[in-house]
Amino acid sequence: MQVEITREYIAQVDEAVERKDAAFILSTMEDMHPADITTVLYELDAEQCKYVMDLLPPEIGAEILSDLDYDIRTNFLHNFTSKEIARYVNLMDSDDAVDILNEQNVQTREEVIALLDNEEKSAAILDLLHYEEDCAGGLMAKELIKVNLNWRVRQCIEEIRRQAEDVERIFTVYVVDNRDKLVGRVSVKTLLLAKDDKLVQDIYNPDVISIESFKDETEVVSVMQKYDLESIPVVNIQGRLLGRITIDDVVDVMQEQAELSRQLMTGITESVEEDDSVFRISRSRLPWLIIGMVGGLLAAQFMGFFEEDIALLPAVALFVPLITATGGNVGIQSSSIIIQTLSSNAVVFENFMQRIFKVLLVALLNAIIISVLVFTFTYLFRHEFTLSLVVSVALFSVVLLASLMGTITPMLLDRFGVNPAVAAGPFITTANDLLGLGIYFAVAHMLYNL
Amino acid sequence: MQVEITREYIAQVDEAVERKDAAFILSTMEDMHPADITTVLYELDAEQCKYVMDLLPPEIGAEILSDLDYDIRTNFLHNFTSKEIARYVNLMDSDDAVDILNEQNVQTREEVIALLDNEEKSAAILDLLHYEEDCAGGLMAKELIKVNLNWRVRQCIEEIRRQAEDVERIFTVYVVDNRDKLVGRVSVKTLLLAKDDKLVQDIYNPDVISIESFKDETEVVSVMQKYDLESIPVVNIQGRLLGRITIDDVVDVMQEQAELSRQLMTGITESVEEDDSVFRISRSRLPWLIIGMVGGLLAAQFMGFFEEDIALLPAVALFVPLITATGGNVGIQSSSIIIQTLSSNAVVFENFMQRIFKVLLVALLNAIIISVLVFTFTYLFRHEFTLSLVVSVALFSVVLLASLMGTITPMLLDRFGVNPAVAAGPFITTANDLLGLGIYFAVAHMLYNL
Repeated sequence: MQVEITREYIAQVDEAVERKDAAFILSTMEDMHPADITTVLYELDAEQCKYVMDLLPPEIGAEILSDLDYDIRTNFLHNFTSKEIARYVNLMDSDDAVDILNEQNVQTREEVIALLDNEEKSAAILDLLHYEEDCAGGLMAKELIKVNLNWRVRQCIEEIRRQAEDVERIFTVYVVDNRDKLVGRVSVKTLLLAKDDKLVQDIYNPDVISIESFKDETEVVSVMQKYDLESIPVVNIQGRLLGRITIDDVVDVMQEQAELSRQLMTGITESVEEDDSVFRISRSRLPWLIIGMVGGLLAAQFMGFFEEDIALLPAVALFVPLITATGGNVGIQSSSIIIQTLSSNAVVFENFMQRIFKVLLVALLNAIIISVLVFTFTYLFRHEFTLSLVVSVALFSVVLLASLMGTITPMLLDRFGVNPAVAAGPFITTANDLLGLGIYFAVAHMLYNL
Repeated sequence: MQVEITREYIAQVDEAVERKDAAFILSTMEDMHPADITTVLYELDAEQCKYVMDLLPPEIGAEILSDLDYDIRTNFLHNFTSKEIARYVNLMDSDDAVDILNEQNVQTREEVIALLDNEEKSAAILDLLHYEEDCAGGLMAKELIKVNLNWRVRQCIEEIRRQAEDVERIFTVYVVDNRDKLVGRVSVKTLLLAKDDKLVQDIYNPDVISIESFKDETEVVSVMQKYDLESIPVVNIQGRLLGRITIDDVVDVMQEQAELSRQLMTGITESVEEDDSVFRISRSRLPWLIIGMVGGLLAAQFMGFFEEDIALLPAVALFVPLITATGGNVGIQSSSIIIQTLSSNAVVFENFMQRIFKVLLVALLNAIIISVLVFTFTYLFRHEFTLSLVVSVALFSVVLLASLMGTITPMLLDRFGVNPAVAAGPFITTANDLLGLGIYFAVAHMLYNL
């Protein structure tokens, strides 16, 4: 029976949990993929989830736990004893197990590890706990199939049989020498097609791309993407095989990175989701609002120097929003393209001056078009030559300068090791507001001979 | 010899090409991964690339061509005859082959297909050319291993041996019935561990997640990500197995999508990269600059109604940048979080009114904090009670209204089938500028009794 996950079904599960109708839950979830059950659980509260989890087979429960978002999982596991957690952790891949243990407090973590009855698993977990979460070592799992260079195909098949339960998806069998140093790889396909008494050293492929355990996760992503790998072995500095990272984990990292950079660009400083608390969402937004506010107050202070000019020629004030908005738009557009280049990890050999020159050419072209349009419209609407000239000359300079700022700021931040996406949103906008106003009032002052 | 790709190495290759030093190029590129050679080729011009490609073995050349960005590849292939292109296409997976053929003009495409000497390949390509590029059918390759439910393991191994060259990475062997309908899967590992005379129907796994050929690429991405798949079979509406999509293609789609949505949010309307031409970059930016300009001119027109007020009370004009900037920042922050939820394809069962209520709570909290701060600073700096009150009351309303706008606009666009990211950047900012000014001058008018 294939159950579709609809709002109605969620409501039925909710009711079934309330009246402790285990039969309904088991019969509808029996043929469901764990990832679909996870979707259902997201809609229930922590205690309801506990009831459902207790009904499901532990293998399914372990998959669901590995799948959950970490913030929901933390909340979720509060209702579980260390013994219950250990039962699931026993059945997980070591990388998922470590992720979960890292989210627990020290006491729970120690208790769970002590309760693991699979010794190989607990050794793997203890080893993995040493690595930072955002480096290759923190992404890898210990489960993999490795064979010795001197083995025969028969022994390799034996090894795969022995590990069959632990390593669900093999992708590649890694070949090591007697000192456990990674020397190559051999595919399951090759093993399947080779004669049983062939030696590994006669059929293996010595070209194997690996990554060192201390490398940053962004580097893992870019290497796996560049070489189209579905898994990558992790080695230590001596080249010893430590574990492997599979593409599903990397896909998750990619998505996190994309979301993070988008949030930074839109002025959100903490990673938040729509279902986080009101306080947390509010807190994630305040820093940029306050920076924007300080910028606005500085702008007011600055324009205050021209208060008499404005009283004399109030028309000048009317174009302030045009100037600040254009500066902001140009700045964000320019920074966007530089950030894309910087984040793509491309080996860019282009000269700094060449890049700036090109940015200026683009800006020049757009500045001419925009300022001619603005001059025309302003003159048509207001018939004031000097005002139209002031607005369009100022706009021309603002487009040029905002392009430069939007290009140079991310490059500088990147050189100083700051994520350049930080600069893309409100920061560039705020700086350009001030810059634009400065230019505008300077031009007005000059051309009106104030 | 492991050659590192540095600026110096690129310069050496450049020189070697000029003096036709095939020996240097071949010896340094011999042990290089094709993806690394691609990096080098990006730095050479089209004719230099042609010289290098002619030196390399065609298998390597085919991998490089599959790897190249499509805009660079188009330029690159101008120097190749149809016969030369056909030689590479013969060696490619059908999905990569179709991507390249789709980039050629009709004549070249027909010529290349006619020149293919691998009949199975040309049939696969002709079949794939029917699908839209951004649907599951357009992403899939025809190369896969399928076995019949009634076969024995021995026959499966024979089939794999037969296809060994065509299907480099198997991942999963698909199981079909006599009418070619997909009924399950079996891993190479299972085949390796099973006895030769076992029947497929006794060892296969009937749980297989597939996708229909007409489904959109965004759905392919979300299904593969949800179920952690490294490959997914594509079926037609009757469930017949047509092809498969592998994770490397999906990773590329994910990255394109992330870049596209980021560009939309930063007011860039065409997909551009830093190395595109000045005209193309300029053109990609103009639409939003012009919309922003129109917004700015409308703002000027609107403020024109209050020109006499401004002449009387120029201090009111000083806070215009504060009002517009805050409205813009709040609008972008709000839309960002909604777009994230919408694009995550999550089954969100939350009620529309509940979401709006929460958005308003967050906005209320931030509005109070910001307007109290602004009141305090303004009063401290200027000692004008009414002015401070006008600015802070207006700001309070702007934060509330901009939050609502920033939330509702993307939801409406999404409901009407428009990519909500379109609304996130300059559009929201421009609308909020006008909204903010309206509120500000209305409040000023009321509180000053103008």
